[in-house]
Amino acid sequence: MSNTFGRILRLTTFGESHGPALGGVLDGMPAGLPIRPEELQAFVNRRSAGSTGGSTQRREPDQVEVLSGIYEGVTLGTPIGFIVRNTQARSGDYEAMRDIYRPSHADYTYQAKYGLRDHRGGGRASARETVSRMVGGGLAMQLLQHMGVTITAFTSQIGSARLTEPYNKLNLSNIDNNSVRCPHPEVAAQMVAAIEQARSEGDTLGGAVTCVVQGVPTGVGEPVFGKLNATLGAAMMSINAAKAFEVGSGCDFAAMKGSEALDLFEPCPDGAIGTATNHSGGVQGGISNGEDIYFKVTFKPVATLMRDLPVADRQGHPSVLHPCGRHDVCVVPRAVPIVEAMAALTLADTMLLQRAGRL
Amino acid sequence: MSNTFGRILRLTTFGESHGPALGGVLDGMPAGLPIRPEELQAFVNRRSAGSTGGSTQRREPDQVEVLSGIYEGVTLGTPIGFIVRNTQARSGDYEAMRDIYRPSHADYTYQAKYGLRDHRGGGRASARETVSRMVGGGLAMQLLQHMGVTITAFTSQIGSARLTEPYNKLNLSNIDNNSVRCPHPEVAAQMVAAIEQARSEGDTLGGAVTCVVQGVPTGVGEPVFGKLNATLGAAMMSINAAKAFEVGSGCDFAAMKGSEALDLFEPCPDGAIGTATNHSGGVQGGISNGEDIYFKVTFKPVATLMRDLPVADRQGHPSVLHPCGRHDVCVVPRAVPIVEAMAALTLADTMLLQRAGRL
Amino acid sequence: MSNTFGRILRLTTFGESHGPALGGVLDGMPAGLPIRPEELQAFVNRRSAGSTGGSTQRREPDQVEVLSGIYEGVTLGTPIGFIVRNTQARSGDYEAMRDIYRPSHADYTYQAKYGLRDHRGGGRASARETVSRMVGGGLAMQLLQHMGVTITAFTSQIGSARLTEPYNKLNLSNIDNNSVRCPHPEVAAQMVAAIEQARSEGDTLGGAVTCVVQGVPTGVGEPVFGKLNATLGAAMMSINAAKAFEVGSGCDFAAMKGSEALDLFEPCPDGAIGTATNHSGGVQGGISNGEDIYFKVTFKPVATLMRDLPVADRQGHPSVLHPCGRHDVCVVPRAVPIVEAMAALTLADTMLLQRAGRL
Amino acid sequence: MSNTFGRILRLTTFGESHGPALGGVLDGMPAGLPIRPEELQAFVNRRSAGSTGGSTQRREPDQVEVLSGIYEGVTLGTPIGFIVRNTQARSGDYEAMRDIYRPSHADYTYQAKYGLRDHRGGGRASARETVSRMVGGGLAMQLLQHMGVTITAFTSQIGSARLTEPYNKLNLSNIDNNSVRCPHPEVAAQMVAAIEQARSEGDTLGGAVTCVVQGVPTGVGEPVFGKLNATLGAAMMSINAAKAFEVGSGCDFAAMKGSEALDLFEPCPDGAIGTATNHSGGVQGGISNGEDIYFKVTFKPVATLMRDLPVADRQGHPSVLHPCGRHDVCVVPRAVPIVEAMAALTLADTMLLQRAGRL
Repeated sequence: MSNTFGRILRLTTFGESHGPALGGVLDGMPAGLPIRPEELQAFVNRRSAGSTGGSTQRREPDQVEVLSGIYEGVTLGTPIGFIVRNTQARSGDYEAMRDIYRPSHADYTYQAKYGLRDHRGGGRASARETVSRMVGGGLAMQLLQHMGVTITAFTSQIGSARLTEPYNKLNLSNIDNNSVRCPHPEVAAQMVAAIEQARSEGDTLGGAVTCVVQGVPTGVGEPVFGKLNATLGAAMMSINAAKAFEVGSGCDFAAMKGSEALDLFEPCPDGAIGTATNHSGGVQGGISNGEDIYFKVTFKPVATLMRDLPVADRQGHPSVLHPCGRHDVCVVPRAVPIVEAMAALTLADTMLLQRAGRL
Repeated sequence: MSNTFGRILRLTTFGESHGPALGGVLDGMPAGLPIRPEELQAFVNRRSAGSTGGSTQRREPDQVEVLSGIYEGVTLGTPIGFIVRNTQARSGDYEAMRDIYRPSHADYTYQAKYGLRDHRGGGRASARETVSRMVGGGLAMQLLQHMGVTITAFTSQIGSARLTEPYNKLNLSNIDNNSVRCPHPEVAAQMVAAIEQARSEGDTLGGAVTCVVQGVPTGVGEPVFGKLNATLGAAMMSINAAKAFEVGSGCDFAAMKGSEALDLFEPCPDGAIGTATNHSGGVQGGISNGEDIYFKVTFKPVATLMRDLPVADRQGHPSVLHPCGRHDVCVVPRAVPIVEAMAALTLADTMLLQRAGRL
Repeated sequence: MSNTFGRILRLTTFGESHGPALGGVLDGMPAGLPIRPEELQAFVNRRSAGSTGGSTQRREPDQVEVLSGIYEGVTLGTPIGFIVRNTQARSGDYEAMRDIYRPSHADYTYQAKYGLRDHRGGGRASARETVSRMVGGGLAMQLLQHMGVTITAFTSQIGSARLTEPYNKLNLSNIDNNSVRCPHPEVAAQMVAAIEQARSEGDTLGGAVTCVVQGVPTGVGEPVFGKLNATLGAAMMSINAAKAFEVGSGCDFAAMKGSEALDLFEPCPDGAIGTATNHSGGVQGGISNGEDIYFKVTFKPVATLMRDLPVADRQGHPSVLHPCGRHDVCVVPRAVPIVEAMAALTLADTMLLQRAGRL
Repeated sequence: MSNTFGRILRLTTFGESHGPALGGVLDGMPAGLPIRPEELQAFVNRRSAGSTGGSTQRREPDQVEVLSGIYEGVTLGTPIGFIVRNTQARSGDYEAMRDIYRPSHADYTYQAKYGLRDHRGGGRASARETVSRMVGGGLAMQLLQHMGVTITAFTSQIGSARLTEPYNKLNLSNIDNNSVRCPHPEVAAQMVAAIEQARSEGDTLGGAVTCVVQGVPTGVGEPVFGKLNATLGAAMMSINAAKAFEVGSGCDFAAMKGSEALDLFEPCPDGAIGTATNHSGGVQGGISNGEDIYFKVTFKPVATLMRDLPVADRQGHPSVLHPCGRHDVCVVPRAVPIVEAMAALTLADTMLLQRAGRL
């Protein structure tokens, strides 16, 4: 059941990195939504290698083929099945990996869990799996646009280069002006330099993505186990290499006093109730309060270095893997649209679920 | 559906802070497990006010009454229903809150979502809700003990007082030697002092809890959306006031190079495969690798200060709430067993689900 | 997970026949619905022994105690927890059953599945379990009334006494005018006589319940696996002793020609589209067509006879159980409100789910 | 969520009758199971038009393309994605149906539910949807074979031609010896004649399928809402045109006395406990008792006659549809493998879930 995400809007995915295709089924899309296929394809393309700095040169087209659920340009309310063919899979590259475990990869844990694995390029554990999330998320994004919700993510840290301004002091229209998807030109330049430095050393870098969700009405989200904090957290922590999730002031709350952390109410010009600050990140008790929802996701560095890598064979004996294949120095810029996709799936699902709770 | 947690071992909870009772149903416990009721009650008592420093003086017994699923001291495999009566609820204290919204509480968001609310003590949004998690988690803990898994949480930060050593350099048997549940005596003393200082100022403090899970076999966890990172993340972020979740090196990964972050394999004395370091926190690709699983949860400061508090009325007009009632200065020590309970529910559920995947 | 029913409106139940209490949690009720507690209690009482002919004389009050989710007479949108205490449980009656398996009961299968069981009165397998369904169903019924939907069930067969008229030729206001809940006075008299005859022989009788759901708007239900046929079927076949489920013309369809079975359209006076006949039972492709939804559920005879009963001991050796305790001759009249309760839960859930599918 | 079936072994399907492809994802298959693709394709072919008497002449190859989850001939434990292209879709045939509703079809109900529909050949409501169930069910069947479980279905009634012997008096190896999949040669001949008669009249026929599941160990199934009766019932009632479901003696129970219906225990030669009769159909309290599990599913006649058909247009005004396209006279023989497929999915899922319940 762990290949399905969502309660009302449910994405089920399948596919190994080097099998014939990846794909999925998005069930629960309301009927009657016009779908713009070029916009969907463009969204999926943002994840592609080569679309950012720090990424490999491999360019796989990731052509989305929709097989059902959309007729004459409009959703039918039936499940949307789709596939993305693997066109450039060169399995031969990976024959050396059949009997070894790379450190900080999922080779060993998949083998332990399943007793066998598709060793080619990580198989199901490959970050290539996220292409199905991009398709589902891209469709969810079009639903959210219809609902007046926008989702914007950007790179907020790569190695020691990090943004210090809050998101609302940045010009987010700059995000796509550079190869690292950072809205601050100077910090973006530092990130590019850090990536080049790491590349020259055969090393890799971690980083973080910040995401802002705007336009969610007050009162969206569920109590107790279904809090927005929790569903967004699960969504983000399910992305490959994600190791931390923070909502609002996040980890900074630990060192704060209550008197510093309170978001005091203030009347809005339109008569609604707003808050003067937004430490909470737009969520109180798991439910949206009408302010921007924002959060940060931290990613560990890519585990494949372009150096000789100490690995283990099936008996646990040490061995060495020589660098080969195509690998990103830093995946964080490519993770930006994946964070958006997972946020879109989470919010669209939550907003549809909301409707089922009305008398 | 958001009042149910888990896939195989499923806890469904109910109850408002000032209603007749809280309670829940734990479905999916295997049959034949002897249950030690005193141990369960003792675990639940760890959450109680007065059990730690920083907490209110209110002492509610939180007496667990098991209604089904256990017969002659052993689980039947049928759902375990339980209730905890609210014995000290003094609703009158809360009459003033009927028409106001406290800042950084869920009053406003519940009202917006549901159109009405039980205003007494936060209703369903009260942290008192977690008593049902303690019962479910305490039962899951007894199952995990049977499976050889232990879970240990402790306070790692309160305000500016924080542990700097990793958990494996600490003597975890010291956790209950002080009122803040911190295993390091000096840091514990700093935490106690910080709480007293905040109390004297009518202020509150945030903090963090670290949790270590030991004994989980290699290969436990699910791929893609069901990664251990994601299910643990959802579990922790569903706890009241939780605002950040980090696995392994967590946020520190953002500034790390790949060459610093790799957990290289090394043979274990027993022939198994281990790793020399454990930045990953025991999880690769969402699946356990046999190392300790550890993570950190950050909590925001208590939102009710013992000062005059600026609040909003239903029209958004400013008003003032005078301090009254009983409120914790810092909930982090009380959150320690709640983190354990949610970790126990998550791990027990995952380990049972694992069995369903074997040929 | 099999102790939870529903997708949006979810009933989770617990309780053994002779434990301290049965109960459950109804999650997903929309906020703001006024609840009439006396009506709920009266609905639950319809299931009680002694409420009908054919039933035992045991009178257990089945007092419903609501513990959460309703405040000041109105639903909060939070889970409704409830319990029903077992007040007349005389476990001593059942000591003889600890080591034997009664034929056509679940003693043997529970023992095989779980390795142990609560042998007292059937434990979790007792029909007493349905009291929790009555509470959940009674609440769902109040929601449906708000939505304009009514549910009416009646006894359509007991032994060889059976109704031959279709439901719409009967005066359904007669249902509660006799002890067998059959709306046709002559057939009801035959049923009463059949029960008395069986009672005098120490025997028992099977039968059937017919249920009519009126007021469901056109277009309610889900496609494919979630068809109304399927969800109603699962609901009904989950009731103790249910062995057959038929929608519309049901089993009679097997011998029909297409030209006899078609429900031709005809314009309704109000401009809507109706059908001249209703063989389909109000459902096409799993979705309501605005006609009455009707179905029939067949129940096997009570398996406990008031005769010496050949049983098996744990080794499979034959033994004899002497009649004791209190047992119904025919449960079908008591099953009438249980069918209503499960229909109410199914329809209310489906109608709430419907809302989540709108753009 | 209604396009997903199962709890542990979960089939999610997609596809419209005349879209590019149908397909699905089977999640939860244990790793390490060798898959025989020719056997899978042969199973899927059993559903095809032209494979039986009573069916249309349209021969669509229904070529299964597996896209993931199987590597080097063995399951990986990851989701199995698959598609079946629609190769012979002639949408032009259906243009006349864009604005009319056929009686006893789902045209009107889909339009009412979704506000729009793919009118070509029934779209998602077409029985062609079941091809995805055949793929999922065929894979489940291979898992069940590994577990020692066999599933055999056959036609037990078409129109007035019906089997009167119980399944265990029939030679089930005869099932595929005739075009109607009936194991009794004389009755099969009557069925063939009935179909030819109906065809000559431009009419259609209903019927029934009986299914026998053998080899399920004692103790499989869940209590309360997850009873085998209920999950099998939901599975069968979700098949297009299914209108009744009976377990064991089914509807006959209504007229039986308890003394006639009891399945008395008797020791088996192998020391296990068996029953002398099997009215219960192998299920007690929702859990298998080691006897054969058998049940019957009744299907209504095909709603498209080869006659001028009175239909309604969108305003409800009467219109006439001239016969066209390719339509079965009786789908029951083609439903035989679909019943097997759904039974296989249900049993495999239940047996995997069983494992999660062991200490």
